[in-house]
Amino acid sequence: MTKNTKVNAAILIIGNEILSGRTKDTNTSTIALWLNSIGVKVNEVRVIPDIQETIIETVNVLRKLNDYVFTTGGIGPTHDDITAESISKAFSLNYEIHSEAFKILETYYKTGEFNEGRQKMVWMPKNANLILNPTSGAPGFSVKNVFCLPGVPSILKSMLGGLKNEIVGGEPILSHTISLRTVESEIAKSLTDIQNNNSDVEIGSYPFFQAGKLGVSIVIRSEEKLKIDKCTKEILEFVKKKNIIVVER
Amino acid sequence: MTKNTKVNAAILIIGNEILSGRTKDTNTSTIALWLNSIGVKVNEVRVIPDIQETIIETVNVLRKLNDYVFTTGGIGPTHDDITAESISKAFSLNYEIHSEAFKILETYYKTGEFNEGRQKMVWMPKNANLILNPTSGAPGFSVKNVFCLPGVPSILKSMLGGLKNEIVGGEPILSHTISLRTVESEIAKSLTDIQNNNSDVEIGSYPFFQAGKLGVSIVIRSEEKLKIDKCTKEILEFVKKKNIIVVER
Repeated sequence: MTKNTKVNAAILIIGNEILSGRTKDTNTSTIALWLNSIGVKVNEVRVIPDIQETIIETVNVLRKLNDYVFTTGGIGPTHDDITAESISKAFSLNYEIHSEAFKILETYYKTGEFNEGRQKMVWMPKNANLILNPTSGAPGFSVKNVFCLPGVPSILKSMLGGLKNEIVGGEPILSHTISLRTVESEIAKSLTDIQNNNSDVEIGSYPFFQAGKLGVSIVIRSEEKLKIDKCTKEILEFVKKKNIIVVER
Repeated sequence: MTKNTKVNAAILIIGNEILSGRTKDTNTSTIALWLNSIGVKVNEVRVIPDIQETIIETVNVLRKLNDYVFTTGGIGPTHDDITAESISKAFSLNYEIHSEAFKILETYYKTGEFNEGRQKMVWMPKNANLILNPTSGAPGFSVKNVFCLPGVPSILKSMLGGLKNEIVGGEPILSHTISLRTVESEIAKSLTDIQNNNSDVEIGSYPFFQAGKLGVSIVIRSEEKLKIDKCTKEILEFVKKKNIIVVER
């Protein structure tokens, strides 16, 4: 894995339901967009099954290769929720009742509702930092650079804001998209030349279908607005020369 | 990575647009559902950037750990399409014009349209097997157990059927879903008992929101219908005892 000099992260999606194809993962996109906005680049994503030794092994690889690791899934009350126990083992920490999490859920649930199933959700690695959950009570947690979030997309989304002060990013990664009524092969050569002239800017080319018509979105990414502007200008120059129509997307 | 005794696969999503969060990956689900139907289980998914050395390294890891590897993305005509060259290097094969692919595209495009950009798409690892593309002409390819597909979801989908004879799967993986109007914590204990009594069946529990109401889908997976039926019966027994409503999803 090539490590760049910027602040980077890996996302680890834990869950058989993604690997079986039953559920389409949307958490990667949610986390990645949020990380970009605070200057953290996602280096890689892995999706792995609910198998303890796989979780332990993968977390231990990723946390050494990346500044941050975000896991999703496996922190609920059922038998297939094994993330907290696995993370404890990955860090050789006791897996035990987290007193602060216990208090949160004791207050959150009505008397009698804080049952055995729900109590499983307060078992965490010893001294884990809590990630508050404004949607459904049960907190996530972090140990060192590993942040464990739930799999349910709406709950995960509501918890990211509370993490902002925990993550130290670099410059936000800016992007600009130019969408064209063309096909990739028409612009491939010009785009290659521009990429070669602007090697520190990331230029991506993505075909799309919209309202029955083919198009290509060119995405320019960099931490520096000036560099994006320079690239944009060069692209629009060849677009004009080739009489290609710019479209809204 | 735990390797099970069944036929298994890894999916490798190549593309900065997924890592940036701009595009949500749906190809994993498409490929995984199709693989399940022919008896291949997806062991892991990785999403990596358009960086040649990362692609080479990851392909070489995954192809040794899995019976099959499916890559998506990076086989188009633009500068960021580097999958074919990277796979060539991963297998130490020449990266060269594939004469059969050349003929296909020469026929597919009208005279004069088979331009330099499009010709890039016939550069492949030496002696690669083609994967025909009924949607847009340009074929994918395979080398040994690595199958390279495009990133555009509709095109990828149309190419899977043609692969059926190339992949030797085990027993199809069957699944049955029971959706309940309940919350996970209410059924966690009973479900754990059932999982413990049926250790060779995979039972997953997935909360959902539907029409403003909470629910849980229980997914039972196995190659053997009888085992799924036994599990289903046990689940429906406790569901009845607890007066939980079964819902359609």
